[in-house]
Amino acid sequence: MKEISKLMGYRSDIRVVDATLRDGGLVNNFYFTDDFVRDLYLANIRAGVDYMEVGYKASREMFDENKFGKWKFCKEDDLRAMFGDNNTELKLGVMADVGRCDYKNDILPKSESVLDLIRVATYLNTIPSAVDMIENASAKGYEVTCNIMAISNNHGNDLEVALDILGKTPVDVLYIVDSFGALYPEQIQRLADTFMNFATKYNKKIGIHAHNNQQLAFANTIEAVGDGVDWLDGTYAAMGRGAGNCAMELLLGFLRNPKYNLYPVLQFVEKHMKKLQKEGVVWGYDLQYLMTGLLNQHPRSAIDFTNKGREDYVEFYKEIVAQD
Amino acid sequence: MKEISKLMGYRSDIRVVDATLRDGGLVNNFYFTDDFVRDLYLANIRAGVDYMEVGYKASREMFDENKFGKWKFCKEDDLRAMFGDNNTELKLGVMADVGRCDYKNDILPKSESVLDLIRVATYLNTIPSAVDMIENASAKGYEVTCNIMAISNNHGNDLEVALDILGKTPVDVLYIVDSFGALYPEQIQRLADTFMNFATKYNKKIGIHAHNNQQLAFANTIEAVGDGVDWLDGTYAAMGRGAGNCAMELLLGFLRNPKYNLYPVLQFVEKHMKKLQKEGVVWGYDLQYLMTGLLNQHPRSAIDFTNKGREDYVEFYKEIVAQD
Repeated sequence: MKEISKLMGYRSDIRVVDATLRDGGLVNNFYFTDDFVRDLYLANIRAGVDYMEVGYKASREMFDENKFGKWKFCKEDDLRAMFGDNNTELKLGVMADVGRCDYKNDILPKSESVLDLIRVATYLNTIPSAVDMIENASAKGYEVTCNIMAISNNHGNDLEVALDILGKTPVDVLYIVDSFGALYPEQIQRLADTFMNFATKYNKKIGIHAHNNQQLAFANTIEAVGDGVDWLDGTYAAMGRGAGNCAMELLLGFLRNPKYNLYPVLQFVEKHMKKLQKEGVVWGYDLQYLMTGLLNQHPRSAIDFTNKGREDYVEFYKEIVAQD
Repeated sequence: MKEISKLMGYRSDIRVVDATLRDGGLVNNFYFTDDFVRDLYLANIRAGVDYMEVGYKASREMFDENKFGKWKFCKEDDLRAMFGDNNTELKLGVMADVGRCDYKNDILPKSESVLDLIRVATYLNTIPSAVDMIENASAKGYEVTCNIMAISNNHGNDLEVALDILGKTPVDVLYIVDSFGALYPEQIQRLADTFMNFATKYNKKIGIHAHNNQQLAFANTIEAVGDGVDWLDGTYAAMGRGAGNCAMELLLGFLRNPKYNLYPVLQFVEKHMKKLQKEGVVWGYDLQYLMTGLLNQHPRSAIDFTNKGREDYVEFYKEIVAQD
């Protein structure tokens, strides 16, 4: 049983990361208005959020700039136009996907960028590339996280091998990423234990990024807090791919550190997120996401179901159960 | 840490209770169509659900029969018209509220009723009346649960005193009811420990009925499973007062006992629950319920906010924070 002090007190090592633009951008192809982004930035500052992930550093050779909003690419000019020199307590980060980022060119030296943090996203089978990206970003002067996606697909001791390799890199934070929303809290606890073994050995922090396929994104995140995980991802109104993420408003309501303020989050959700939903931008828990989560599958089939406006949930279930 | 066997195996003592008609009835004043109720009954049978709570035994002196559907009163004639003699594995139950049920007259001897289970709902300050109702129902031949509502408002050792009194009655199951959706999983764990002390001493079972104000109804329910709680309430599509309950489809997806089947639940949700929602029946997680849950308040103000179609969430927050 967790200590009662963990509910009444707080750990000052906790870091809250707002991933709304990045994971939410997967819902609307990163077409956020400048007004939205500016208000989000200000809300994060007022809420005491520690990091704001403002999008991806996606390869402009692989992705057409005319088909996505600017937050998929996060060019320095666009960042400066929005955040200036960012002379605030809020740090700014981007995600860089293994295999989909021209990191050697597109990630500038820290001294030339308003960014503070590079989040390297990888699967377990692309760890060597992740290591190269981590070393590159660290040498350029950034804080670096490594986000191990689809963690529920770990086989055998692949994860332990990966964590041991990553532990020897300059990465600062090792992230548990439940991309499929497939995990229950007690599985998070076990994963956190595994991560903690290597984090302790190599002096790293641990983070969690959850998805809400089984309405467990918030529950899994607070489970992780009790297990020693310090870096916590949330998104406003839980906006994120498919079933969405851990809602920032739930997370800040839970955390007891007086540096965090719920009120600006509520204001932002009322003003902007409810508006997005009214405009027809769709994300969040629904039956089709429960199904892919339960079956430990990538949500792409469920997202396709959603985008087509299908309502034959049972038929969809029969489709995805029979994957032989 | 919980045993890994709890995820891969199952406890045969688990009992699943479908509370859709009862808690969901609070959303639509119990105006369910006969077609809905018949299909729900059949879905429960096919899904292997153990108990179906079909409504309330509400006092017809206090409540006007013309203002509510028949499932608020559950008269024997109405039960027989729908369920016949119920020669199935599925047991039927009703809720009887302390102070709002003419239980001496309206609850027939078991030999004259198709019902199997009486669920006595009480607050901590009405335990003596609950005891009388428990003894009455037990003497008439029913299985009996005692559902201690608003458990998050327990002061000092009131709960221990109540559990010791209830332990000496013929009640079969002691229920943790998080009416306000205010509790986190580790608080559920602590409550379950307290309940377990008395359940062990008096040979009772423990149950849980959760609300989804903080998207924790399912998480708190599976936390409770790991803590030895056997009776689990769910509702289809989480239909229930305010933020709703633990979704039956999530719960049956989690439970590993092969007697439970998810498929008929999915069929029912697609056919009936999605239809209800399209018709404008509103329940489920939203900001206003997060707020009352976080502040450990009864959801009535949030329900009123919902029913009025208000969208000024921040204004509502200011209203309910300032309750002096």
